[in-house]
Amino acid sequence: MANLELIRELHKSAATKIVLLVIDGLGGLPRTVDGQTELEAAATPNLDRLAEEGTLGLSVPISPGITPGSGPAHLALFGYDPIARPVGRGALEAIGVGLEVRPGDVAARGNFCTLDAQGRITDRRAGRIPSDEAAPLVERLAEVRLEGIEVAVRHVREHRFALVLRGPGLDPAIDDTDPQATGVRPGPARAARPGAERTAELVEAWVRQAQEKLRGEPRANGLTLRGFSTDPDLPPFSETFGLRAGCIAVYPMYRGVAALAGMRVVDFDGETPDDEFRHAARVWGDFDFFFIHMKRPDSRGEDGDFDAKVRAIEEIDAALPALTDLRPDVLAITGDHSTPSQLRSHSWHPVPLLIWAPATVRRDGQRTFGETSCASGGLGVLPATEVLPLLMAHAGRLEKYGA
Amino acid sequence: MANLELIRELHKSAATKIVLLVIDGLGGLPRTVDGQTELEAAATPNLDRLAEEGTLGLSVPISPGITPGSGPAHLALFGYDPIARPVGRGALEAIGVGLEVRPGDVAARGNFCTLDAQGRITDRRAGRIPSDEAAPLVERLAEVRLEGIEVAVRHVREHRFALVLRGPGLDPAIDDTDPQATGVRPGPARAARPGAERTAELVEAWVRQAQEKLRGEPRANGLTLRGFSTDPDLPPFSETFGLRAGCIAVYPMYRGVAALAGMRVVDFDGETPDDEFRHAARVWGDFDFFFIHMKRPDSRGEDGDFDAKVRAIEEIDAALPALTDLRPDVLAITGDHSTPSQLRSHSWHPVPLLIWAPATVRRDGQRTFGETSCASGGLGVLPATEVLPLLMAHAGRLEKYGA
Repeated sequence: MANLELIRELHKSAATKIVLLVIDGLGGLPRTVDGQTELEAAATPNLDRLAEEGTLGLSVPISPGITPGSGPAHLALFGYDPIARPVGRGALEAIGVGLEVRPGDVAARGNFCTLDAQGRITDRRAGRIPSDEAAPLVERLAEVRLEGIEVAVRHVREHRFALVLRGPGLDPAIDDTDPQATGVRPGPARAARPGAERTAELVEAWVRQAQEKLRGEPRANGLTLRGFSTDPDLPPFSETFGLRAGCIAVYPMYRGVAALAGMRVVDFDGETPDDEFRHAARVWGDFDFFFIHMKRPDSRGEDGDFDAKVRAIEEIDAALPALTDLRPDVLAITGDHSTPSQLRSHSWHPVPLLIWAPATVRRDGQRTFGETSCASGGLGVLPATEVLPLLMAHAGRLEKYGA
Repeated sequence: MANLELIRELHKSAATKIVLLVIDGLGGLPRTVDGQTELEAAATPNLDRLAEEGTLGLSVPISPGITPGSGPAHLALFGYDPIARPVGRGALEAIGVGLEVRPGDVAARGNFCTLDAQGRITDRRAGRIPSDEAAPLVERLAEVRLEGIEVAVRHVREHRFALVLRGPGLDPAIDDTDPQATGVRPGPARAARPGAERTAELVEAWVRQAQEKLRGEPRANGLTLRGFSTDPDLPPFSETFGLRAGCIAVYPMYRGVAALAGMRVVDFDGETPDDEFRHAARVWGDFDFFFIHMKRPDSRGEDGDFDAKVRAIEEIDAALPALTDLRPDVLAITGDHSTPSQLRSHSWHPVPLLIWAPATVRRDGQRTFGETSCASGGLGVLPATEVLPLLMAHAGRLEKYGA
C-alpha cells in the first residue's frame, strides 16, 4: 500500500497534468476459441500506439484473489488503503447524487418495491418505475420528519433513491432491510452491533412514516434500504497528493467515490466517451489531475456479452484522440477491476495498466494493450494503490526522499 | 501478507475441490553445462501440459533473500504470516508423530547421542541407531516423572524422539542443549529470557533422570534437546478459509505443520507419489482442500545430487495423471522453498508456481513448467501467503469485497 504520509511529505507542485482513465471492468478472460480476451479481441489502434510508446503492467485491486466492489477498487486507484478505509455503498450513492455525507452521518440506498396485500414483496424494483414517476414519490418521502435528526432524501434514477440521516450518536451498523427476495416482507432495520439500537429505531420510525406516504401507489407502494454507511473520512486528495483533482463520470456511484476523496465532481451533459472527453477539454485549465470514468465495458461484461464488451472498448479507443490531443503529461489507462464476460461479474484477476508519459517512461517492447502483453510489461504486477504515486513521479510531482 | 480477517469474512462454500501439491525443495539453480535447473532438465510432459493450460509465477516463501525452514515455508503456503506466527521444530516434530501439543505446552526434538567417559559427545546421532533399538530406550525415558508436570515422549525414527511438557507457567524460550559439535558436553537447558528459568530447571531435572535411564548403553548413552517451542495457536484453517482440509504427507514434520493449522492428517501405507495420489483418490469425498506433500526432490537436493533430484521430479510427473484424473477444480503445484542441488541446502530463491483452473484461469503463453517460464508467467512474483487466497478465488470460494 502506498505510504500516504510519505507522499504527503514529498509532493511538490509542477505545471503538469495527469489523466487517470478508468475503463470499468477492463480486464477479462480468454475466449476459448481464439484465446483472446475482450481487450485483446478489440480493434484498438489508439490504445496500442500508447502501449507501444508507454509501459505496461498489471494492477492488483486489493490483494491476490480478492474480488473488489467498485468503491474499494476506486479508493485503491486513488491511493487509499481500501481495507483500512472501508467505504459503504449508501454513502457513495448519496454523495454521487449531490447529498452531503459527513463523518457520523448515516447514509443508505433506497429501492421502491411493490408489496402485496400482506406486505410481501412482489417486485423488488417496483417494475423499474420510470424516473418521472418516481421523483414525485421521493418528494413525498422528503416530508417525513424525525425528532432531533436532519433527514435528506434524493432521487437517483428509476426505482432508486438515497437517504441521509444526521444527528448526534448515530451508528451506520444497520442491517439491510432488503431481503433480496420476493414473497417475503422487507426486514426490520436491525442493529448489527451494540450501540446501533437507537439508530435502528430511528430508521424504523422513518420507514413507517415513509410507508404511509406510499399507501395506495399501484407499483411503488413499499421500500427497502441497504448499504448503511458513513463518510470514511479520507485524508483529502488535494492535501495528500497536492493535486487539484476533477472527476468526470456519468454514474452517481463513481462521482460519489471521487467526492469522498475530495475531488471536485463536475457536471456535464451526455454519457458517451466523446461527451466525457469533450468535457475534459472544457475544464482542462481547472485541474492538475483528471479522473475520467467509463462505465460501459463493465456493464457489458456483467451482461455476459463478450462481443458487446469488445465494442464498448472499441468505442472508447475511437474517442481517445480527443483526450490525447489535450497533450496530458501523464496518461494512465486501467480498470478498477476485471469483469470477464464469461463470469458475468467482477473478478479478482489483475487489471491491464498502461502508463504513457513521453518524457520519463522506460519502454518495455510491448506493442499492444492486452492482458498478455501487460503480464510481460515493464511495470510488472503491482498493487493498485501504487499507481498514483507512479503517475505523480512521471509528472515531476514528487521530491527525492532523503539526501 | 494475506489479510486473514478479510478472508475469514469473505469465504463462502462451493462444491469445488482445491489441491495444493507441494514438491518440497522444488526450485533450483541452472547446471552450468546446459543452463537448465533440475525442474527444467527433467522430462515432465504432464507438468508442461498443466503449465500450458494454466498460469505460472514465482512464489516468495518469506521475503526476498530469506531462506526458510520447512515450518515457516509451509505456514506461508497455508496463508499464515510465518513471521508473526513462528512455529518451532519441536512442536512440529511432536505433533507429526501424534503427540498433542497445546498452546502453553513446551515441545522439543530429542536426539540420542554417544558420550565418552568424560560425558563429551563422540557421535551426535548415536551411530544412527536403528529404530527397533531406539524405541525401547524411548520407552524407558517415558518412565521419567516431574512433579506437577505431565510429560510425554515418543520415538520418531532412528536416533530421534519428541518430548512434550504440560503444566502451568511453562515457557518455551529454552536454549538448545545440542552443541552441534563433538568433543564437548551437551549444554544445559538455559532460559533464553527472564521468566523461563523454572521451565529450564524442569527440563534439566528431566534430562538428569533420562540420562540415568540410558547409563550403560553402548551407543545411545546420552541425549540432546533442541527446537523448544509451543503450539503457535494458529486460527483454525477450517474457520479461516472455510475449507475441510486433508493432509497427505509421509514425513512427521509436514503432517505436524498441517495438524497445527487444523487440517485432518490422514494415515496411509506407502511413501511413493503413486501411493500418495492413490490415497488422495480414496479420501476424495472427505475434503474440499488437499495438501499433498512430496519430500524426495528436497532430500536429493540436500544430497547435492542434481540428477537424482531430476529423477525425483520425473517420478512425480509420471504419477500425476492419477491426481488429474480426479478432476480437481483448482490444482496448484509449487514448492515450500528452493533446494538447489549445487547449494546442498534450502535457499531463498523464489519457487516455481503453477495454477491450473480451467474455468477461470487467464493463460499466459508459457508452455513448460520451469524457473525461467515461471519468471515470465502471468502471476508475476508473489508472496507465498497470497497463493491460498488466489486458489480460493479460482474455486469460487470468496465473496466480493465491498460494493
